[in-house]
Amino acid sequence: MTALRRLHVVGTGLIGTSVALAARDAGIAVTVSDADPAAERVATALLGPPTGEPGRADLAVVAVPPASVAECVAGSIRRNVAAYVTHVASVQTQPQREIEAVLGRSDRVVGGHPIAGREVSGAQHADSHLFRDRPWIVCPSADSGAAAVEAVLELARACGATPVILDSVTHDQVLSRLSHVPQLVASALAATLGAIPAEEVALAGSGIRDTTRLADSDPALWAEIASANASAVAEGLHDVAARLERVAAALAADASSGASAVAELVADGRRGRASLPGKHGRPAAALSTVVVVIPDRPGAMADLLGAVAANNVNLEDLRVEHSPGQPLGVVEIAVAPGERDRLLGALRDAGWSAVAGADAAI
Amino acid sequence: MTALRRLHVVGTGLIGTSVALAARDAGIAVTVSDADPAAERVATALLGPPTGEPGRADLAVVAVPPASVAECVAGSIRRNVAAYVTHVASVQTQPQREIEAVLGRSDRVVGGHPIAGREVSGAQHADSHLFRDRPWIVCPSADSGAAAVEAVLELARACGATPVILDSVTHDQVLSRLSHVPQLVASALAATLGAIPAEEVALAGSGIRDTTRLADSDPALWAEIASANASAVAEGLHDVAARLERVAAALAADASSGASAVAELVADGRRGRASLPGKHGRPAAALSTVVVVIPDRPGAMADLLGAVAANNVNLEDLRVEHSPGQPLGVVEIAVAPGERDRLLGALRDAGWSAVAGADAAI
Repeated sequence: MTALRRLHVVGTGLIGTSVALAARDAGIAVTVSDADPAAERVATALLGPPTGEPGRADLAVVAVPPASVAECVAGSIRRNVAAYVTHVASVQTQPQREIEAVLGRSDRVVGGHPIAGREVSGAQHADSHLFRDRPWIVCPSADSGAAAVEAVLELARACGATPVILDSVTHDQVLSRLSHVPQLVASALAATLGAIPAEEVALAGSGIRDTTRLADSDPALWAEIASANASAVAEGLHDVAARLERVAAALAADASSGASAVAELVADGRRGRASLPGKHGRPAAALSTVVVVIPDRPGAMADLLGAVAANNVNLEDLRVEHSPGQPLGVVEIAVAPGERDRLLGALRDAGWSAVAGADAAI
Repeated sequence: MTALRRLHVVGTGLIGTSVALAARDAGIAVTVSDADPAAERVATALLGPPTGEPGRADLAVVAVPPASVAECVAGSIRRNVAAYVTHVASVQTQPQREIEAVLGRSDRVVGGHPIAGREVSGAQHADSHLFRDRPWIVCPSADSGAAAVEAVLELARACGATPVILDSVTHDQVLSRLSHVPQLVASALAATLGAIPAEEVALAGSGIRDTTRLADSDPALWAEIASANASAVAEGLHDVAARLERVAAALAADASSGASAVAELVADGRRGRASLPGKHGRPAAALSTVVVVIPDRPGAMADLLGAVAANNVNLEDLRVEHSPGQPLGVVEIAVAPGERDRLLGALRDAGWSAVAGADAAI
């Protein structure tokens, strides 16, 4: 068993700096380094003055883009920066293979992947709570030693994450479907908007906005991730594309085969979506909603939230819908079904234009 | 100029009943009918006792699935239910052609399409605010009379919507890209989840959830919509599929061509997404966020919202992130950049675990 007292983070982007901040908050002595001195300075400033005695770290976390992981892990082992070295790459198999090629077999290295991130990057967006209650996948190789694995599990728990051990091939297959393919499909859909005149894009509703939210991500990073998991991603993209082409061909053939291909697709999609975990990993729960229209003036949302708070209702979810061309917003508040009428009545009594909304699942 | 005093709604699903409730709230006398007596009873109950004198309506709104629109519009004209008849179909060209085929040329008919909806259906989910500040596209045919068009514009405004006049072909092309194709792409992506074991789907983050939110929709309704706009939808699906296949082929070929195809795709997606309108149709504005971790106990969210309200900050957006397997939630509150530090300080002073989050655009 190790006791994780000293951590060194190599690479002070969003993930590395967030790991550093979370570990520091858990009482671990943290140092950081980055090839870019400006990025290192931002992270160092966020971390504050160093704590604990200087010396070799128990664990080094390599948080650099996937293509640089192997070289950086091998360098950290060779320079003996830490007893054990992990990384946080979104792909695992290729870095594992590359590390062995550069370094030879080592019991001091264990791959890992915290399932958390943002559409933005950089130390300035780091968040010490980024990993709270998120899965942190740990991918030991055949050579990884038990003490090295334990050090990574400790780090994951110190950051508030839930560690999950998976082999690297399973990791890459699962992540291709849950993350890499959805990212590229969102980008492909968003790319089609470029061909539509601005006054027509202005007619877009919230659906296309949600469906393309991932498309704000960084091209260079995703180029590395996708090409490091190329065969699984290519297969996943092909599966989606082939399904879309089959539906397109059916629509082009005749109305009846088009309609049945679409109905089958949408029904399959509903089934797939129902398999997504609900809040806290429990099966999705039915909720009721209250819809409130608020004016776009300072304090209007605060007033509404004050009115909600005064009634001590446990909000399960809240969505703000903005409206094109008009200074009003629509807020949908999701609560347990038994709470809805009480909240609705209280908001109406307080003068809000509130109506019962649709049921929702979370 | 008409003066819209009496409205009749044919079809008491989500849209028809929402139109009926919104028009009633605007002081218009509203009657409803539905082929299904149970659905009609729900809508009648929601509407409450009839107001105004009985008699022929000024305008009838046909709110039935696309494949039934023509027959139902023609029937309403023949039975002289109203002076003018409109509908609310998600496609316009095919119903316009079918109406002329059944009824002949008529100056009393004008197509329309309020851009609003939910992933649920039925009168019980109706919402009188559904159209507030949303576009309501009005599609006159070559034969539609000015008074008929004016009646539909009046209805749109009475429901709080912003009317936009478009020809039916442009409508169908634009909607295929902004609504029909995103729907089917979301379904195709969600359909791939069906092949992943449940314990692996549990590793999903919020990205795939947002990207597939539309996939909860009704298969039969979308079968009718897509097949009534078959060529535009087929072309749009093919464009997305072909792009995905090109990227898949590049990934399968070699790492370098895969990486550049992915980088180009993600960059195109970012450009497309940047063209989506921001809040209130203005260009997207930069916002700052505060991230707060809250325990999953009754009143915790209410307490947080109370603390926010007490500081009179204008919330621009709010997102609740639920965590798998743990009873904690993460709330991201978006505010104007100048407001962030004040809110952050106030929440921390009040004992919340709040941190500065990423910047966002809205």
